Amino acid sequence: MVEIELTKRQQRIIEIVKELEPITSEQIASMLSVTRSTLRPDLAILTMSGMLDARPKVGYFFSGKTDINLFSQEMKSIRVSDIMSVPVIVSEETSVYDVIVSLFLEDVGTIFVASKGFLVGVVSRKDLLKATLGGNDINKVPVAMIMTRSPNIVTTIKDDNALTAAVKIIDHEVDSLPVVERIIKDGKECLKAIGKVSKSNITKLLVELCRGGA
Amino acid sequence: MVEIELTKRQQRIIEIVKELEPITSEQIASMLSVTRSTLRPDLAILTMSGMLDARPKVGYFFSGKTDINLFSQEMKSIRVSDIMSVPVIVSEETSVYDVIVSLFLEDVGTIFVASKGFLVGVVSRKDLLKATLGGNDINKVPVAMIMTRSPNIVTTIKDDNALTAAVKIIDHEVDSLPVVERIIKDGKECLKAIGKVSKSNITKLLVELCRGGA
Repeated sequence: MVEIELTKRQQRIIEIVKELEPITSEQIASMLSVTRSTLRPDLAILTMSGMLDARPKVGYFFSGKTDINLFSQEMKSIRVSDIMSVPVIVSEETSVYDVIVSLFLEDVGTIFVASKGFLVGVVSRKDLLKATLGGNDINKVPVAMIMTRSPNIVTTIKDDNALTAAVKIIDHEVDSLPVVERIIKDGKECLKAIGKVSKSNITKLLVELCRGGA
Repeated sequence: MVEIELTKRQQRIIEIVKELEPITSEQIASMLSVTRSTLRPDLAILTMSGMLDARPKVGYFFSGKTDINLFSQEMKSIRVSDIMSVPVIVSEETSVYDVIVSLFLEDVGTIFVASKGFLVGVVSRKDLLKATLGGNDINKVPVAMIMTRSPNIVTTIKDDNALTAAVKIIDHEVDSLPVVERIIKDGKECLKAIGKVSKSNITKLLVELCRGGA
């Protein structure tokens, strides 16, 4: 991929094609008082970039694509499995106190809760903070009491693209998403957490993409 | 700006120029067994994108720019002041309990601490969580006891670009940065917090840029 700043003449060509499509290169050349051969590189750039369509024996059409965005193209070409972290998973009987200890030991912001190997909940720093204020003995309260419970969890899958994951995080106002595999067990759909995608993963990806291209 | 996927021939031209620079269009044409006029649009694209340099009467040079990155260009054109949030600021005497209440009421992840209007510390969800475990009465412990204290705070300014802020967040492993103004008071440099940039702001920016270009 390369990027090209359009010249005044190329922008003028786009305007002409927009207005008069279909139009031949001879007609465009005569409107701009240049030769067809002068115009050839301009038309090559505009068709290669997808801004103009050329149909043999008919002429040039405006494609409508003026703002092709490398940004979203790159984000869509990167999969969740390329950026996800290893999740920290505890069982639903774990005490709130022990979950907080895991959070510090593993240095994460969100912890997943599993029952018999399957995802049943998610617990955030805010959930834990709220639990510590409640006045209960957090050594005795199991994490299952305070977690956000499935199906109220927003999830993603490893083949989703990075942009889809980022959009879910923003739209649902969460810090991270469990990356799940759906497994049918005893006729019931169960989720297995195989990764985690957080705002940190997204911010890191953005920094890496920018550094890679510096 | 438009983007163009390079053809095989254009990629071959880059390889030839890399190896044999300076090289004339006649020489390239003869190596590829095509006419100079066939080559003209290719060379136009490669020079316009900045990948090749053309010097009159000398020939084509390889510029070294193979990966011009719209991503980082866009990120660098956006200023911190364009994406920052309003900060939540408490005074240093505020109790840990009251800071936690503010965190929930304002729905933020980080709170700034000020003394006489100037930034003296930052307190995160993790700092607060740790404080609640300490066994002390969080109604009596002032936030100043548990905050990360200036000058150990990583800050940014409103004229920094969004990429610089994202890099600081990742490199220093923090959730957010105070956006500060430096003020000289009684011969001492003081910081005034005028905003906050977090991983949320960065993730949101990324989603907006991608949506804008869809």
